[in-house]
Amino acid sequence: MTTDIATKTQETPNQNFPPSDSRERFKKFVMDLQDQICTGLEEVDGKAKFQEDAWQREGGGGGRTRVITDGNVFEQGGVNFSEVWGHHLPPSILNQRPEVAGHEFYATGTSMVLHPRNPYIPTVHLNYRYFEAGPVWWFGGGVDLTPYYPFVEDAIHFHQTVKGACDNHHPEYYPAFKKWCDEYFYLKHRQETRGIGGIFFDYLDSRGNLYNGPDPDGLAAQYAKNVGKMDFSWEKLFAFAQSCGNSFLPAYLPIVNRRKDTEYGDRERNFQLYRRGRYVEFNLVYDRGTIFGLQTNGRTESILMSLPPLVRWEYNYKPPAGSREAQLYETFLKPQDWINYKA
Amino acid sequence: MTTDIATKTQETPNQNFPPSDSRERFKKFVMDLQDQICTGLEEVDGKAKFQEDAWQREGGGGGRTRVITDGNVFEQGGVNFSEVWGHHLPPSILNQRPEVAGHEFYATGTSMVLHPRNPYIPTVHLNYRYFEAGPVWWFGGGVDLTPYYPFVEDAIHFHQTVKGACDNHHPEYYPAFKKWCDEYFYLKHRQETRGIGGIFFDYLDSRGNLYNGPDPDGLAAQYAKNVGKMDFSWEKLFAFAQSCGNSFLPAYLPIVNRRKDTEYGDRERNFQLYRRGRYVEFNLVYDRGTIFGLQTNGRTESILMSLPPLVRWEYNYKPPAGSREAQLYETFLKPQDWINYKA
Repeated sequence: MTTDIATKTQETPNQNFPPSDSRERFKKFVMDLQDQICTGLEEVDGKAKFQEDAWQREGGGGGRTRVITDGNVFEQGGVNFSEVWGHHLPPSILNQRPEVAGHEFYATGTSMVLHPRNPYIPTVHLNYRYFEAGPVWWFGGGVDLTPYYPFVEDAIHFHQTVKGACDNHHPEYYPAFKKWCDEYFYLKHRQETRGIGGIFFDYLDSRGNLYNGPDPDGLAAQYAKNVGKMDFSWEKLFAFAQSCGNSFLPAYLPIVNRRKDTEYGDRERNFQLYRRGRYVEFNLVYDRGTIFGLQTNGRTESILMSLPPLVRWEYNYKPPAGSREAQLYETFLKPQDWINYKA
Repeated sequence: MTTDIATKTQETPNQNFPPSDSRERFKKFVMDLQDQICTGLEEVDGKAKFQEDAWQREGGGGGRTRVITDGNVFEQGGVNFSEVWGHHLPPSILNQRPEVAGHEFYATGTSMVLHPRNPYIPTVHLNYRYFEAGPVWWFGGGVDLTPYYPFVEDAIHFHQTVKGACDNHHPEYYPAFKKWCDEYFYLKHRQETRGIGGIFFDYLDSRGNLYNGPDPDGLAAQYAKNVGKMDFSWEKLFAFAQSCGNSFLPAYLPIVNRRKDTEYGDRERNFQLYRRGRYVEFNLVYDRGTIFGLQTNGRTESILMSLPPLVRWEYNYKPPAGSREAQLYETFLKPQDWINYKA
């Protein structure tokens, strides 16, 4: 199953090793991205400011957790940066990449979840990360949108912006990573997508296709078939990750600005709180990063800052037929080709 | 690791097989218990009534889910009965009991979670269940209490009542199952017990000690050492499960009655909603039954009726020093010997 790294190196000598300053460059990118995003969000909020907690990790590394609460726009949200290193990669990673066993690892990234107060503004999640362990390295991450009272034009704008960032690097990226996102952010027990998706990728490296290592979900293998020959050098992939990260504010802020003054009442608020329950269910039941973090003594408060500030559960809720709420379920919680969507 | 059932049968011929009407008798017990508990809870609530949903399971069996909402006392809660059978036990059971592979199974039980509105009344959980699969059978379950603004006298009353039910059957039951409860209902990522505990047991059968099968958590093996020779016949264990179930109302209702008229304000309500987040975290991250149910297409609405009606998360909350809230963390979210507790 696994590719012999040494052999590949001879075939593609300039592509299989990251530059000597790879860690510093990705770290600077995600720290700058954290700054850029926090500034943009504070501007649109107009009231609340991010509060920062810097923290150190015992085994090596640390981070800066930034939380915004009680804003005009954002009821609660966090934009995190972290950088960790150590001797032992966790089992969840070793299962996916057994060839890294015994190597020291380095990982850095940024992750973000924002819970707006107005039910007409979608919740959004972003995460970009970079790993190195001995001879292997990879990029991962993505961005996805979770509306409560959705608008087709918002879904199209979000996907078009993200697609634009992808298309600058390869036309096969967006369709592959969009599909991966729809499948990853899926609540099996509800038979619903988490929202309208976006993009998701993982273990993206220089192996000559999207991914050819262990693939328990069978997703990567499936999409790799669709992807033609590309330049998967570290530089190209880093440039791709940067484009993705930099497309966040243009993808999200216009939606916030369009919806932030929409009036709403108890009905919309109650539905928003109910739907936030799905976010909790996804993050605690399915999200690999969250579960791994909780079970391996990560910084709990930083991991769970993704959970909403206020959430409702209601037994056997069904949206009224023909309602805006029903429309969410019928159209927006299923994978859709938003780029070509005709209302 | 596993015991040869046939050999054990010869040693203890009258103890290793359940009576021919074992399923009917346990089913009747848990259905009657569901009725008895619902009646008792409606009486103390004085306003809301349980609404029942009867459901059928495609692979065999069904249940009756009963939910109470917007009561005087209970903001939301459910008392479920279910009975299921089929050809294939799920991997989570087969990992624990590999000898049942290939056998048809039968399982029935009742499970309950109640979320009172008044923060001075604790949340409570109960579950008693019975399994048969080929030559093996076992009982499992327990009861545990989760206070927000706790009282030592309530904790002592709850544990004394549960201990009384256990002691009628064997003096080693309560200490073993109390400790098991403290360890099972533990949130590692918070370093907190879920509440003040109660009792928990699983795979309780006629094998001559508490449990001698696969024991990934190492708990049963540890406690089995403390337990002397007992009569583990089906009849004796069924009688024990009945005593546990019947002790629920005497254990819980006096606490409800003592606390239901206590006045509270926003501070107490907000803290209750915040602490309810821990209930969600436990049920979605650790609870084997919940995770198994969600991942194997159980009836989602019945499984997740255990989640609270309204929940808050707050980044990095710390209880004020010397406060009632701090007292919860310092004294009640750690295992305590409540029977001999001196305030």
